[in-house]
Amino acid sequence: MIDNPSYVIDTFFAIFAMTLIIFMVPGFAMLEAGLVRTKNATSVLTVNVMIYAVASLAFLLIGYEYAFGSWDHQDSLSKYAFFLFQMAFVGKVVNIMSGGVSERSRIIPLAIFTVIVGAFIYPTIVNLTWGANFLEGTILDISGLSDLAGSTVIHSTGGWALLAAILIMGPRHGRYTKEGYAKVIPASNIPLVTLGALLLWIGWFGFNGGSVGAISSKENADAVALTIMNTNTAGLSGAVAGWILTYFRYKKFDITMILNGALGGLVSVTAGPQLYDIHIPLLIGFIGGALVAWFVPFFDKLKMDDPVGALSVHLVNGIWGTLAVGIFVSDVSFLTQLKGVVVVGAIVFPISWIVIYLINKFFILRAEDDEQLEGIDYAECGIEAYPEFKRSI
Amino acid sequence: MIDNPSYVIDTFFAIFAMTLIIFMVPGFAMLEAGLVRTKNATSVLTVNVMIYAVASLAFLLIGYEYAFGSWDHQDSLSKYAFFLFQMAFVGKVVNIMSGGVSERSRIIPLAIFTVIVGAFIYPTIVNLTWGANFLEGTILDISGLSDLAGSTVIHSTGGWALLAAILIMGPRHGRYTKEGYAKVIPASNIPLVTLGALLLWIGWFGFNGGSVGAISSKENADAVALTIMNTNTAGLSGAVAGWILTYFRYKKFDITMILNGALGGLVSVTAGPQLYDIHIPLLIGFIGGALVAWFVPFFDKLKMDDPVGALSVHLVNGIWGTLAVGIFVSDVSFLTQLKGVVVVGAIVFPISWIVIYLINKFFILRAEDDEQLEGIDYAECGIEAYPEFKRSI
Amino acid sequence: MIDNPSYVIDTFFAIFAMTLIIFMVPGFAMLEAGLVRTKNATSVLTVNVMIYAVASLAFLLIGYEYAFGSWDHQDSLSKYAFFLFQMAFVGKVVNIMSGGVSERSRIIPLAIFTVIVGAFIYPTIVNLTWGANFLEGTILDISGLSDLAGSTVIHSTGGWALLAAILIMGPRHGRYTKEGYAKVIPASNIPLVTLGALLLWIGWFGFNGGSVGAISSKENADAVALTIMNTNTAGLSGAVAGWILTYFRYKKFDITMILNGALGGLVSVTAGPQLYDIHIPLLIGFIGGALVAWFVPFFDKLKMDDPVGALSVHLVNGIWGTLAVGIFVSDVSFLTQLKGVVVVGAIVFPISWIVIYLINKFFILRAEDDEQLEGIDYAECGIEAYPEFKRSI
Repeated sequence: MIDNPSYVIDTFFAIFAMTLIIFMVPGFAMLEAGLVRTKNATSVLTVNVMIYAVASLAFLLIGYEYAFGSWDHQDSLSKYAFFLFQMAFVGKVVNIMSGGVSERSRIIPLAIFTVIVGAFIYPTIVNLTWGANFLEGTILDISGLSDLAGSTVIHSTGGWALLAAILIMGPRHGRYTKEGYAKVIPASNIPLVTLGALLLWIGWFGFNGGSVGAISSKENADAVALTIMNTNTAGLSGAVAGWILTYFRYKKFDITMILNGALGGLVSVTAGPQLYDIHIPLLIGFIGGALVAWFVPFFDKLKMDDPVGALSVHLVNGIWGTLAVGIFVSDVSFLTQLKGVVVVGAIVFPISWIVIYLINKFFILRAEDDEQLEGIDYAECGIEAYPEFKRSI
Repeated sequence: MIDNPSYVIDTFFAIFAMTLIIFMVPGFAMLEAGLVRTKNATSVLTVNVMIYAVASLAFLLIGYEYAFGSWDHQDSLSKYAFFLFQMAFVGKVVNIMSGGVSERSRIIPLAIFTVIVGAFIYPTIVNLTWGANFLEGTILDISGLSDLAGSTVIHSTGGWALLAAILIMGPRHGRYTKEGYAKVIPASNIPLVTLGALLLWIGWFGFNGGSVGAISSKENADAVALTIMNTNTAGLSGAVAGWILTYFRYKKFDITMILNGALGGLVSVTAGPQLYDIHIPLLIGFIGGALVAWFVPFFDKLKMDDPVGALSVHLVNGIWGTLAVGIFVSDVSFLTQLKGVVVVGAIVFPISWIVIYLINKFFILRAEDDEQLEGIDYAECGIEAYPEFKRSI
Repeated sequence: MIDNPSYVIDTFFAIFAMTLIIFMVPGFAMLEAGLVRTKNATSVLTVNVMIYAVASLAFLLIGYEYAFGSWDHQDSLSKYAFFLFQMAFVGKVVNIMSGGVSERSRIIPLAIFTVIVGAFIYPTIVNLTWGANFLEGTILDISGLSDLAGSTVIHSTGGWALLAAILIMGPRHGRYTKEGYAKVIPASNIPLVTLGALLLWIGWFGFNGGSVGAISSKENADAVALTIMNTNTAGLSGAVAGWILTYFRYKKFDITMILNGALGGLVSVTAGPQLYDIHIPLLIGFIGGALVAWFVPFFDKLKMDDPVGALSVHLVNGIWGTLAVGIFVSDVSFLTQLKGVVVVGAIVFPISWIVIYLINKFFILRAEDDEQLEGIDYAECGIEAYPEFKRSI
């Protein structure tokens, strides 16, 4: 016999889930490095590694205790495993923001923003939803929000920060012509985009499955398995939506839209995958993928320049996914979900706006036009991503 | 104490194994994108993502219940985890076929074939072997077949479908000269090929280890560990075979043959890795790798054009691996194994032939010669894989 | 109830940990293929696959029993799972050596060295530290060494072999000018470098976490989780060190140094991650990353040519990490740690020197200058890594 089997198994399971989430670090890095032009790929990769390091350390040293009150708030599994699982989330919030402003941002100011997100902004939202809840009993109490793995807590939070950044920083130099047309800037490395999106997909199994929090009873084991199944189904369905919608519009298969559709589906199911029967995610994910296909050109028309489609994938679907729980699950209140969406937006957007505005003013987040023309890699890294390949562009 | 430890642990283990198998999605995608020319890489990646989405959804909505009779046919682990594990297999069958006809096929017709495989062809074979067995007691009953993880059920099935497709579609435009010589078409991205093959290798641990079906007793834990060890050993041995055989022929190290040798070894051990002692897979895998080194040029002489070597890896070794159980395991009948191979071929090959023939006739599976010349990416996707790199070819 | 839960869970855990370590095979392969010039990328990939195959088979057939005395020396988990976990280590030792002499070595001689490391050199060190200990009671007995996952046993061992190889083989042709300046040779594919380093990072969770040896008690579960947390923290901290130190020197972000800093941090924590409280690895890893930033240019000044920085990452940090346990853990003797470092060096360095000297003499390990100029890929493989891309270099 073993002395504490549920503690052992839930610790092991949290480590397993955390490991899958860490595959999202190369996942985001490859996705974004493939979506940007080669002249910006090294800096995008550098930013991704920087985010993992800086956000995680800020969370370890400051954010974690702020979010959860103490290291000993739970005892059903190893506190180190619980920390690891929570730490694996924090960089994602910044990834969402940094991805959407890539090809035009400098690294040091991004690192400063990363510290603030990892130490304060993200932990504030975790505190209010999954954590210690310092607004308990006030009108802003959103602890009733049903958000298993962060459609709001992670994805909208990152999305609101990105929205603020895009409004402050403006589009990439040369992205929109004087006549107002958007210049098409093709992704530079489609295999990397595909690899990255698929690694993110796998990471989502850990993200959502691990968020059930335990696997050591029959009920929990079923909940974890259902969660992962529904997560995957929404991704499949979102991919099909991205596929069909762009095919009927362009008569071509746009793999970046198929993959972003899948990611949209994954975000949209993330608030409640343990609560749906196995067919609901087909619909939620399809709508999620369709929202990406609709909103990517929409934001482009508004000249909100987002090279990786992060606003559509994370903000729009973070909201949709959170509301979906209120629509499809009978004992979850739609109004509670809506309140959660609104309160998180009302906290994250203005704070991010102020922080990014100040960072941009004093540390100059936006790269100069000529730096953008030469490529951020040259200005910031001095290292080309592919120095031996002749470029046609 | 926990209420149902074997249910919990076997559910967790099935989720773990499923996750490893899903790494085969980027695995196949990277392998094939690296093996084809850059002008076809985007379409190959698109097809790989499409297959995962479409085959899985077809299996979820139709194929799974057809294969296993019901969602509740077993109760030793979560039915959702069992579904996930089984679902992870289905796309592989189509991957085998689509890989072998890459650089000359169109996407919509492939998607139609994917639906049919995911909903009917593959579930029929699963039904007869691991599932409900609608031919029980008839002369075609092959439920006695010893095929742990699908040397026949997955690999030969995909291989027979590919054989039909190659016969119907013919070689790539320009692959064979009028004088009958095969034009060498080098793989465009060797790092991707290597990455993809190694991800497949890791996925195999989940494929074969998970197929033991349980880990929650000492006996099962040993069987799982032995299975994974033997699986790995056959891959190692197949790699060495591919290495040695091509080295002695060409005095060069051909990494694509080394990796395909490893994959051949992995396919060949897949029917019975839990049944061999630890030295048998050295021999089975070596022969598996050698078969790849022999059959790749052999199929080429027959002008059966297979850009990724899938016929040799999956069909030849699927057959060899299934027969090997009958040869090396004393209480497994060679004739039962042979019957399984023959019956599956006699079902899958003609059905696939008819289906692919009709799809090619009515939806035109084979891309036109000029589409092939320009690259499938241009015709079908409008997206170059590496738009910024100047090409020398 | 299940019959032997700790056996089951520890077997499952060893399989999980082994699987993570196997991700280091593509990890090393991608890292090194990205760091070398494109004309050497195929051969580097070939060598990486060869090492996994040859070292593992040598260990299976000879080394494992030599290291541990017998297949049945432990019975707390499946002997097959224990073998798999141990086997996953062995190739890493050769990877360290082969990476540091890439762009100038031939494959057959490397394969011969791989057999000798997998069958004798590495098992000798395992025998003395984690295994049967044939020097028990002698003056060379180092079984008291505290080295959880191989700062000395893996990383220094590989590092000493590399040091011998570099001394015997000399620098790459043209690496240092007649005036003594080092020619900068940029990494050819930064996304691959990043992907590879991040896969290694994930693999380390299995390497170190699995080395705790069991997870099936509350105490062990905590030890595993703490180990993985501390491992990760040291990697984060090493990345920050690599970042800061190169930034202040060059005012640029050098991602190869950031990633090598992370790897340095990971090596340096590997000897004792289960023994530190959660803040110590911040310091150990930071020093580890800093040592990389200092020693890479230092070795270059000595004209010890190491294209991937392996001496600094593995040898310097292997030593530092081993000594660190003696410094930071009160009941571990610094002198015992130092003795372990010295004895392993005194065994591995001279044996490797003799073996590599003889291999280089009789099988010619070092490629000729003109082979190096044309690229090892041409001479050894006949396969270009990226045949379609025009090269500017």
